[in-house]
Amino acid sequence: MAHTAGPEIEQLIQLLARLPGFGPRSARRATLHLIKKREVLMSPLASAMQRAFENVRTCSVCANVDTADPCGICTDVRRTGQGMLIVVEDVADLWALERSSVGPVLYHVLGGTLSPLDGVGPEDLNIASLNARVAAGGISEVVLAVNATVEGQTTAHYVTDRLAGQNVKITRLAHGVPVGGELDYLDEGTLAQALKARTDF
Amino acid sequence: MAHTAGPEIEQLIQLLARLPGFGPRSARRATLHLIKKREVLMSPLASAMQRAFENVRTCSVCANVDTADPCGICTDVRRTGQGMLIVVEDVADLWALERSSVGPVLYHVLGGTLSPLDGVGPEDLNIASLNARVAAGGISEVVLAVNATVEGQTTAHYVTDRLAGQNVKITRLAHGVPVGGELDYLDEGTLAQALKARTDF
Repeated sequence: MAHTAGPEIEQLIQLLARLPGFGPRSARRATLHLIKKREVLMSPLASAMQRAFENVRTCSVCANVDTADPCGICTDVRRTGQGMLIVVEDVADLWALERSSVGPVLYHVLGGTLSPLDGVGPEDLNIASLNARVAAGGISEVVLAVNATVEGQTTAHYVTDRLAGQNVKITRLAHGVPVGGELDYLDEGTLAQALKARTDF
Repeated sequence: MAHTAGPEIEQLIQLLARLPGFGPRSARRATLHLIKKREVLMSPLASAMQRAFENVRTCSVCANVDTADPCGICTDVRRTGQGMLIVVEDVADLWALERSSVGPVLYHVLGGTLSPLDGVGPEDLNIASLNARVAAGGISEVVLAVNATVEGQTTAHYVTDRLAGQNVKITRLAHGVPVGGELDYLDEGTLAQALKARTDF
């Protein structure tokens, strides 16, 4: 008996429901919002998505996503001259570091972490290309900016082993108290690390 | 210094951030998800949105959204023969009632509630068209299925006044304990209404 709102609308709801953070209910709400603002939001969004689909490439050097290959970061001479390469798990981490204005650095996106249980081995990540990139020269320091999780740290150790023997300094992000964080809410591991790595005041 | 990910990606993030329930952060996450699944999700979603944009109409009879005008509900003979018209604030409410399988009913979407503070008067809602529709005959009962808010109830009273003199029965949804609800968590108003409207067991 229940009436459906036409195949175009139903399909839009179903596809929107597959976005992260969206379910059937919020997808319906978003669809109605799009229909209400069809001129100012739905039409531009459809075009923007189509343009992104046609133009976005994965950078063959660092695996960043951009509309150019190599990407805008890999071809930025202010960055290539510095020799500092930050290894991240994901493009989201690259974006987060860029928002923090970390300076003229290069990146290498691994595309995940080692996870034997999920069947993710070294050949599934961009580790060989990292090795080749460092071997090609011009990189003086590799910063492992992986997540402070078990998988992230395992991956960091593996990457370090693979880079052994190459003439490059390998560092990792500091552990410590987040800016604005309250000690009372921090786990013991972080507090212990922060005390060990204390600096002059 | 901060690098941006190309105008196509930036624009997609900004437009997605305008969806209800989305902010800059979740829009970035959704954009990365779309880029990762560009063949199976981004491209179909762009097409679905474009098709919906081109085909979705507002029904000239009831203000429902559909790809046909009059909409599939207004032209359904099983519904038009029953003479039961449910007045709702929004298309979302119409969809919610249809999901509840309420039977072969017709709808009239007001498009909001009276709200003098926000400058929403009777002429901004589909009240005149409701009046005309009832006056045209074929409707035996009008059910006011507006939200149980102050604005919703004010609107219900106004609609009732406007329909006065027409040969039609006017009813409203029952108040009571939601199915699966616990009494302890219900407000006093609902409990009092539920007791007053108690039924035989």
